[in-house]
Amino acid sequence: MPKQWYNIAADLPTPMQPPIGPDGKPITPDMLAPVFPMNLIEQEVSRERWIDIPEEILELLSIWHPTPLVRATRLEKFLKTPAHIYYKDESVSPAGSHKPNTAIPQAWYNKQFGIKKLTTETGAGQWGCALSFACNLIGLECKVFMVRISFDQKPYRKTMMQVWGGNCVASPSNETQAGRDILRRMPNTPGSLGIAISEAIEAAVSDKSGETRYSLGSVLNHVILHQTIIGLEAKKQLKMAGVKKPDIVIGCAGGGSNFAGISFPFVNDKIHGENIEIIPIESSTCPKMTKGPFTYDFGDIAKMTPLLPMFTLGHSFVPPPIHAGGLRYHGMAPLVSQCIVEGLIKPRAYNQLKCYESALTWARTEGSICAPETSHAIACVIEEANRAREEGKEKVILFSYSGHGLLDLAGYDKYLSGKLTDVTLPDSELCDSLKAIKDLPKAERKKTGKW
Amino acid sequence: MPKQWYNIAADLPTPMQPPIGPDGKPITPDMLAPVFPMNLIEQEVSRERWIDIPEEILELLSIWHPTPLVRATRLEKFLKTPAHIYYKDESVSPAGSHKPNTAIPQAWYNKQFGIKKLTTETGAGQWGCALSFACNLIGLECKVFMVRISFDQKPYRKTMMQVWGGNCVASPSNETQAGRDILRRMPNTPGSLGIAISEAIEAAVSDKSGETRYSLGSVLNHVILHQTIIGLEAKKQLKMAGVKKPDIVIGCAGGGSNFAGISFPFVNDKIHGENIEIIPIESSTCPKMTKGPFTYDFGDIAKMTPLLPMFTLGHSFVPPPIHAGGLRYHGMAPLVSQCIVEGLIKPRAYNQLKCYESALTWARTEGSICAPETSHAIACVIEEANRAREEGKEKVILFSYSGHGLLDLAGYDKYLSGKLTDVTLPDSELCDSLKAIKDLPKAERKKTGKW
Repeated sequence: MPKQWYNIAADLPTPMQPPIGPDGKPITPDMLAPVFPMNLIEQEVSRERWIDIPEEILELLSIWHPTPLVRATRLEKFLKTPAHIYYKDESVSPAGSHKPNTAIPQAWYNKQFGIKKLTTETGAGQWGCALSFACNLIGLECKVFMVRISFDQKPYRKTMMQVWGGNCVASPSNETQAGRDILRRMPNTPGSLGIAISEAIEAAVSDKSGETRYSLGSVLNHVILHQTIIGLEAKKQLKMAGVKKPDIVIGCAGGGSNFAGISFPFVNDKIHGENIEIIPIESSTCPKMTKGPFTYDFGDIAKMTPLLPMFTLGHSFVPPPIHAGGLRYHGMAPLVSQCIVEGLIKPRAYNQLKCYESALTWARTEGSICAPETSHAIACVIEEANRAREEGKEKVILFSYSGHGLLDLAGYDKYLSGKLTDVTLPDSELCDSLKAIKDLPKAERKKTGKW
Repeated sequence: MPKQWYNIAADLPTPMQPPIGPDGKPITPDMLAPVFPMNLIEQEVSRERWIDIPEEILELLSIWHPTPLVRATRLEKFLKTPAHIYYKDESVSPAGSHKPNTAIPQAWYNKQFGIKKLTTETGAGQWGCALSFACNLIGLECKVFMVRISFDQKPYRKTMMQVWGGNCVASPSNETQAGRDILRRMPNTPGSLGIAISEAIEAAVSDKSGETRYSLGSVLNHVILHQTIIGLEAKKQLKMAGVKKPDIVIGCAGGGSNFAGISFPFVNDKIHGENIEIIPIESSTCPKMTKGPFTYDFGDIAKMTPLLPMFTLGHSFVPPPIHAGGLRYHGMAPLVSQCIVEGLIKPRAYNQLKCYESALTWARTEGSICAPETSHAIACVIEEANRAREEGKEKVILFSYSGHGLLDLAGYDKYLSGKLTDVTLPDSELCDSLKAIKDLPKAERKKTGKW
């Protein structure tokens, strides 16, 4: 297991643009203090390349780490590809995904700082489970606002959180001002991560005791920092398997933490001259990386977060109710966005039918049932493995098997019974949503140089 | 990984009594040929101590084997026990339980024998998933009759089987004579493994092509043989961890294959003089080991199986609809039953509320969510760990973590919301069911010497 996390902010060719407030001025650490504990804020703004992982966190992560790096030989054989396909199996964590990689450190740093309770949002439920799991191990209360559509599609996610002592409600809820406002305007909304984030932040900052903080499962720099354990381990493990370097690195990307986790140590190699193709995969129903502008935008619908420089579909965008709930976030992590701007990584968008087809091919060759989010990565892996066959090249493909789909079988059921369709995103909907960004200060939009 | 399975029939102090037909005469291998392929029948009747695992099976098992042996240090700490608790994690298989340990060999031997399709029954769904998974990998069709109560409680088990190409129907079904008969007499029956076995055997032997066979997930000698990989691996792994021998070995027991799998290599040590306490745990709603007689009985309600010498509640016993569907079988494997008769192992029965409480303690210390069946073993582990604390003894406890509970969250939900109750089995129900055995030839009952 690595003893340090990797911070790509130290290596990016162009320094990151800071988060800014509604007044257009950079956010200072103090301004984030009601939301996050100071030790995590320090990580958020750090430019140190390597950050030590505290011993106690290492011990907790070792419950399921190092996660296996496995070669998908039966899929290779099925595809008759000369490519070597390796996957980093993050589904083996008790919560079933890569999410506890950051849930454990976040809960630990909050506990160190004297915090008693964390609030958060969750899309597909993976993050809510991960934080409930971590809070239980470390001894914190946990409150989860779960996007309504996923709450309904995956009722047992709530049970799972309860098993670990977490308290989960559907969002928008009546428990916050933000939730009540949305419910009044859109009583039948499927919800969105943007809405749930607004509720979770409000619930944290409105606790007068000062002992509650908010925790985010993706997007932010410190979250991505914690997730680099995936790629750092994979790099060591590939070496142990006699592989010098991967030719292609793939990860699905909702807020960006899974993708960044597997890929950033390799993006670093690319910055230093290695030839590696690095591909984040998004859902075509929430195509911020492939169709959104790169600009300053809010992370949530109620504009409670700072403005972040990112690819975005607008903070009021409510994506269609696809089964890959974790890919329904309107924006992409600033660090990942910056890598796109630099040309270090090249995003692609896939629709859900293609992805379920790939998930079935996976289950019937490799055996395991993947999360709908993960199926997006697998769709790309199959595409690239087929290309390698056509080109007759023995490429090494590495991807993050970010989570299992055992709590997501409703989607498989729908697919298998022919009831699943592809959702086409009307351009008008996208335009409406992007208008929300145009209200933001023009100077700030110009700063990003892309929109 | 072990290269051979261990056959306890070679070591039992008293030779096993043979299965017999309704005429009271021992069954010959030929008579089983319409139901099983001859290569598995040979394993069923073998008295060889060690049986080689074919190379191809080893390769397929290596998808998830060797399974981890883990020390439950956080549970130990929570219980303040001097005991060292080790668990063999069989939940890591793609199907989520120990069941693929025998599903893979069974599918493989059938394929070798030229069979094209397997039929089977499943209780909680673990076995149906395992066989669908194995048939898919090996290239056989798979048809699963799933006990109605579990089919309704766990709808996504069916989806999981479908993902692997399996075809699952609720039992009793209208697809067999046995099913139709039961439905006429008991239209609202929750079903039972005994009923589902009748249907699956009928579906196999009535296929005129001769290319269909039946596959059983527990009870039989060859199934138990395949499962000894659990205990054989655990033994090696304990040695690697510096543990000479366990003091206590625990497994939950429905038909007996999980329990036998973890324990038989240690029962062998006990036969040869080691001091080890070995405990199979059953549900108090289906207490064949602790309340049933040891006698010849049928394995299914329609009397399609041979008569087997076993602890039984009567082949027509339909247990209450508890959540641990895998523990709802009326009989106990003849090999396990014989070990009870010999005094080598000492069964216990637990109720489901105690078991869910233990499962919650487990999830909140060790992190993972166990199957309701597995929670029975954990309840005993906690009891023994507490006893070790009271006695001040540093005992080594080993148990089989037979499966995860991610498809069983409905039971947890009911428990957490206070809606779960303990089901008390009326003595009258038991007596009625035992009458069915009394109809069997008296001479055969006497042979077992226990009833």
